[in-house]
Amino acid sequence: MKDRIAKNLEELRRRRPLVQNITNFVVMNTTANALLSIGASPVMAHAVEELEDMLKLADALVINIGTLDGHWIRSMERAVEIADNLKKPVILDPVGAGATRLRTEISLKLLESGAISILRGNFGEIKALLGEHGATRGVDSAEYDIEGARNLALKASEIFGCTVAVTGKVDYVSNGSKIFSVMNGHEMLERVTGTGCMVSSIIGAFSAVDEPLYASISALVVFGVCAEKSYEEAPYPGSFHLKLYDWLYRIDGELIEEKGKVEEIEA
Amino acid sequence: MKDRIAKNLEELRRRRPLVQNITNFVVMNTTANALLSIGASPVMAHAVEELEDMLKLADALVINIGTLDGHWIRSMERAVEIADNLKKPVILDPVGAGATRLRTEISLKLLESGAISILRGNFGEIKALLGEHGATRGVDSAEYDIEGARNLALKASEIFGCTVAVTGKVDYVSNGSKIFSVMNGHEMLERVTGTGCMVSSIIGAFSAVDEPLYASISALVVFGVCAEKSYEEAPYPGSFHLKLYDWLYRIDGELIEEKGKVEEIEA
Amino acid sequence: MKDRIAKNLEELRRRRPLVQNITNFVVMNTTANALLSIGASPVMAHAVEELEDMLKLADALVINIGTLDGHWIRSMERAVEIADNLKKPVILDPVGAGATRLRTEISLKLLESGAISILRGNFGEIKALLGEHGATRGVDSAEYDIEGARNLALKASEIFGCTVAVTGKVDYVSNGSKIFSVMNGHEMLERVTGTGCMVSSIIGAFSAVDEPLYASISALVVFGVCAEKSYEEAPYPGSFHLKLYDWLYRIDGELIEEKGKVEEIEA
Repeated sequence: MKDRIAKNLEELRRRRPLVQNITNFVVMNTTANALLSIGASPVMAHAVEELEDMLKLADALVINIGTLDGHWIRSMERAVEIADNLKKPVILDPVGAGATRLRTEISLKLLESGAISILRGNFGEIKALLGEHGATRGVDSAEYDIEGARNLALKASEIFGCTVAVTGKVDYVSNGSKIFSVMNGHEMLERVTGTGCMVSSIIGAFSAVDEPLYASISALVVFGVCAEKSYEEAPYPGSFHLKLYDWLYRIDGELIEEKGKVEEIEA
Repeated sequence: MKDRIAKNLEELRRRRPLVQNITNFVVMNTTANALLSIGASPVMAHAVEELEDMLKLADALVINIGTLDGHWIRSMERAVEIADNLKKPVILDPVGAGATRLRTEISLKLLESGAISILRGNFGEIKALLGEHGATRGVDSAEYDIEGARNLALKASEIFGCTVAVTGKVDYVSNGSKIFSVMNGHEMLERVTGTGCMVSSIIGAFSAVDEPLYASISALVVFGVCAEKSYEEAPYPGSFHLKLYDWLYRIDGELIEEKGKVEEIEA
Repeated sequence: MKDRIAKNLEELRRRRPLVQNITNFVVMNTTANALLSIGASPVMAHAVEELEDMLKLADALVINIGTLDGHWIRSMERAVEIADNLKKPVILDPVGAGATRLRTEISLKLLESGAISILRGNFGEIKALLGEHGATRGVDSAEYDIEGARNLALKASEIFGCTVAVTGKVDYVSNGSKIFSVMNGHEMLERVTGTGCMVSSIIGAFSAVDEPLYASISALVVFGVCAEKSYEEAPYPGSFHLKLYDWLYRIDGELIEEKGKVEEIEA
């Protein structure tokens, strides 16, 4: 698996995929920088009039509902529809699902379109999308347990018919038949806004070079290893944040081999 | 007072208050990172349809008019109304009041609602809200004098019936009966965008653990001391900015005791 | 020429021009920080109701279409009209022109108003505005050649009747009669989002102290030298990005003299 991730990273850097993001105001800058650092090319168009032109050029679409409103919801819905027609991979990050009904409903509506390839959220968000409320506090998960996360990934991937990544202390990724755990990352990531959103966009970039399950795993391992290296160099949030970009640029197959912690588990 | 600030900081970190921000596009990312660094939990929802759900979860609401328009003004007005009903503290940062009539008028309208607990602005902004124009240049204050700042804080707190913090070379905070000066901070803060906005949001976080007057003082001392430490390590704006987050994470009671400069003065 | 640039920088820092930006969500924070670092004063108002008030205070207007939509287009058009009446310099950054018809059309419409003083774009964007498509990929240029860039700058400045800066490996700036090349900068700039947008805003700041041609050259040399110094200290994108602000603050006439590479070439 780590060979495959290393090869995906090399291929990503060679092809420089164009990742179209309709994302939240808080993380637009950091998401773009994460994509540039790893070697992808970000674009952030949302005007309905230009979505088709832009999506024709794009290799993947990432939808993130972190600061949604009516105007942006229309863009998201239209973008998902166009991407579906163009057969481009679509990644959904349901930020804050469960915290408000609006977020839960829009996420479900987008999932029901059948166009979502990959759903990436924290424990509370994915739980809310399965109809179990109370686990989200604002945009952070208010709970997490390893057994539960594994089951959530599996159940959600079956119900929504797409690859699902539930991220947390251990990340679980499932496409309904297979399930993998990723044990990279660092808790300092919780002290920097938008690190989950960065991962979702990096999944988008890997979607240009591998199928949803392995694109998700690749992104989670790469990003997690970068977080570990960043913390080694900088154990405070501002400096840590900065180092993330440095390591997304520096990470290579050797580092993935040395630090990556991914394994297939029984479904 | 420094004991109280240290205790507030400890309590903030223990409770991790959820601070709901309707703020400007320029500072959303940095505000969220400042709140995460100090130990609070930020959220940035603005859709009218979800304000009530989100505010029920929130410990405080911060309104910042830095890039307002009609759409956002409706969100701000509705959020203030809901927060008032829910008896949550509301902090107003009237960015650029005085520079345009729109900003002055919206700020006054929000203040007249009676729901604002704390108003935090620079000299020019608070002066403009008291009907004296010409002291704001864009979003920066075009003037400042110590005697004037003290009087502004006192007068504004009486007129608007809330706690007012006038920030500048010396910060003055008054609740109409008491007035305190804070002499922490560093002029390099003027070379990083949104540092005033960060303070307003950190005041929001402290509002979850102490009353408006002391929440404001706590935030100003903590942030000011962090600025001083950051400048010691990094005397240029990019590096200084980064260190701010590091120090918001690192600051503790001992540092507050050593560096804090706050005193009650005669009203 | 380098003396003139150094003098312009000194004058910019003395006068602290107020630069009004209607720019994209991705770069608002970094643009504001770039302007603050170099010594200018940024403002980011876009509400139609306050544009006139704000533009009366402003020394220059920068329009950047990076995340445009109908609502923002109306603000841009109105702002350009007001700035024209007030005889303030207007800089246009046609981000992504050529990638979508919407971006090309809006850029052309703004250029046709006759109010644009300076157009700054990459090779693909300027080419698209001259009616030659296919050279833009998302918001990045998909091609570049030195001879072509020189010709583009000259042709575009003649056709649009304004100063044009085509940025890339070598930057070319022309006002239709004169043409200059700038050979500062570093390819690491491509790994940080919004560095082109920063340059456009810094051109805006220099527009307050010199005519369009020399304002553009001053900004390109200063920013390019800062990029070179930043890379010397920090060869990875996160750290490099941070250092840019440090060097925008630190750069002086001596460094411009030592590192600046600008020359007039035959038109």
